[in-house]
Amino acid sequence: MKTYDLIIVGAGPAGMTAGIYAARSGLKTAIISKDIGGTTNSILMLENWPGFKGSGTELMKSFYNQLKEYEIDILMNDVEDIEKKGKYFIVKTKKQEFECKALIIASGTERKKLNIPGEKELIGRGVSYCVTCDSFFFKGKIVAVIGGSDCAAISALALSDIAKKVYIFYKGEELRCEDINSERLKNKENVEIHYNSIPKEIKGEDKVEGLVVSHKGKEREYKVEGIFVEIGAVPLIDFVKKLGLRLNENKCIVVDENMKTSVPGVFAAGDVNCTKLNQVVVASAEGAIAAKSAYSYIKDKEQ
Amino acid sequence: MKTYDLIIVGAGPAGMTAGIYAARSGLKTAIISKDIGGTTNSILMLENWPGFKGSGTELMKSFYNQLKEYEIDILMNDVEDIEKKGKYFIVKTKKQEFECKALIIASGTERKKLNIPGEKELIGRGVSYCVTCDSFFFKGKIVAVIGGSDCAAISALALSDIAKKVYIFYKGEELRCEDINSERLKNKENVEIHYNSIPKEIKGEDKVEGLVVSHKGKEREYKVEGIFVEIGAVPLIDFVKKLGLRLNENKCIVVDENMKTSVPGVFAAGDVNCTKLNQVVVASAEGAIAAKSAYSYIKDKEQ
Repeated sequence: MKTYDLIIVGAGPAGMTAGIYAARSGLKTAIISKDIGGTTNSILMLENWPGFKGSGTELMKSFYNQLKEYEIDILMNDVEDIEKKGKYFIVKTKKQEFECKALIIASGTERKKLNIPGEKELIGRGVSYCVTCDSFFFKGKIVAVIGGSDCAAISALALSDIAKKVYIFYKGEELRCEDINSERLKNKENVEIHYNSIPKEIKGEDKVEGLVVSHKGKEREYKVEGIFVEIGAVPLIDFVKKLGLRLNENKCIVVDENMKTSVPGVFAAGDVNCTKLNQVVVASAEGAIAAKSAYSYIKDKEQ
Repeated sequence: MKTYDLIIVGAGPAGMTAGIYAARSGLKTAIISKDIGGTTNSILMLENWPGFKGSGTELMKSFYNQLKEYEIDILMNDVEDIEKKGKYFIVKTKKQEFECKALIIASGTERKKLNIPGEKELIGRGVSYCVTCDSFFFKGKIVAVIGGSDCAAISALALSDIAKKVYIFYKGEELRCEDINSERLKNKENVEIHYNSIPKEIKGEDKVEGLVVSHKGKEREYKVEGIFVEIGAVPLIDFVKKLGLRLNENKCIVVDENMKTSVPGVFAAGDVNCTKLNQVVVASAEGAIAAKSAYSYIKDKEQ
């Protein structure tokens, strides 16, 4: 069984930045990930990673090219299970096992999908799961937000300052957002909230042109150019169950400002943890911080 | 007097990223700064901003080019004073005054001085705080780097390619730099590291001729023509005195995880605050977080 100082699970912005920092600090490091780039790859045009303009995939390639310059093992694989054995963590993929002294969990999240016709086909062409990333492209246009959570409300508020009109379609009878945001929405003349509304189909050839919504069984098509799906995201953490990391009610991993989890030697960076702003630059910074913390943890143990 | 939603003081990685995020969220924003890039400009070779390899100045130019694409006022000026008046903050430069609803302090740090005889007198005549700016003048000469941090190590490495010989004088017993840089230094034949070494006096009339160093109490003079001081930095916060922000013992601004200071409406990002890891990617993330927090603060007040 191959032994590492540090294993990083995930190769999005957090995992790759952690890898760069860990390798530079001399830790024997492996990154195990099912892909390179994670959910960042779904960002069609990334304008808020400073100094860069291009797709999420392009940015992730540049991260990867830099990462490859270091002595670091990059294994394309699904981590299925991790457990603690003595002073080591045992990391298992389908066919292999590795041991390490410290772990960085940077496995990210998966956005909940509507699972309706047109959604998958039009991702990045009007269908978005990230208002912060994409709202700017809908200046003066008509858009829809799907969902009734605080995230959905905040997304709609942000969009209302940019878009011409914002529909909110929510399956419930009342938004589940903070009162303050609900009040704000009421004061927005260009926001129209529809309750008991279930999206059925996204229309459009090369880009979003409309959304079919069922209101208590009656279907109607709305002309929209943007659809923001805000029905939540789920941290990808099944494989760490045995470690017993403290999670919060949203099933994200609780960390302190040094990205330490409740289990010594385990750090979590990026969207998988409970820090609030899920942005590439924040995930990346958290990766750097987690690597520094892992380094200190390992050096302390060596004393 | 011109009114803004948000004024950002400083245009390093934190300030410029905050500017990008603030402008994208629709806030009427100004950045006031004495320069573009701040201390990042003094980084010769930046290898740990993911996806990028080049000088600090080059990276800061790319930030600036992106920032300029937004509707944001960029004012090259020193902020001399800020005070709260009613619901506004009044930001004063030598000749102008501005008011704003929220503030992001991203003014960074200033390099620490040795405070020994000869230092002040010989700045620019052999005494330097910026290897990037000045290394070229010491081609084939003997120079000294004071300090033991990663910055000191990188400076010494860069100088070793240009100068005939490089001394490192450090008060500690072991360099505090990344392992990769420590290894690189070991492979440099013209670098000589002295520990337990405290600079006492800089000799020279019109230019640096020597450096007196105390090794555990014993003084010795080294013939050097250049002295690069790399002993850290102090937050630039004089202009915010009247706001009464809470500082810690290192005179940095205390913030929470949302970059909120002790004064409502005032946020601090980058090296000027007390978060621990002073890296470009962390400063940048903090700028993004501060802008989001400022946005929420302003929208709350508008209710």
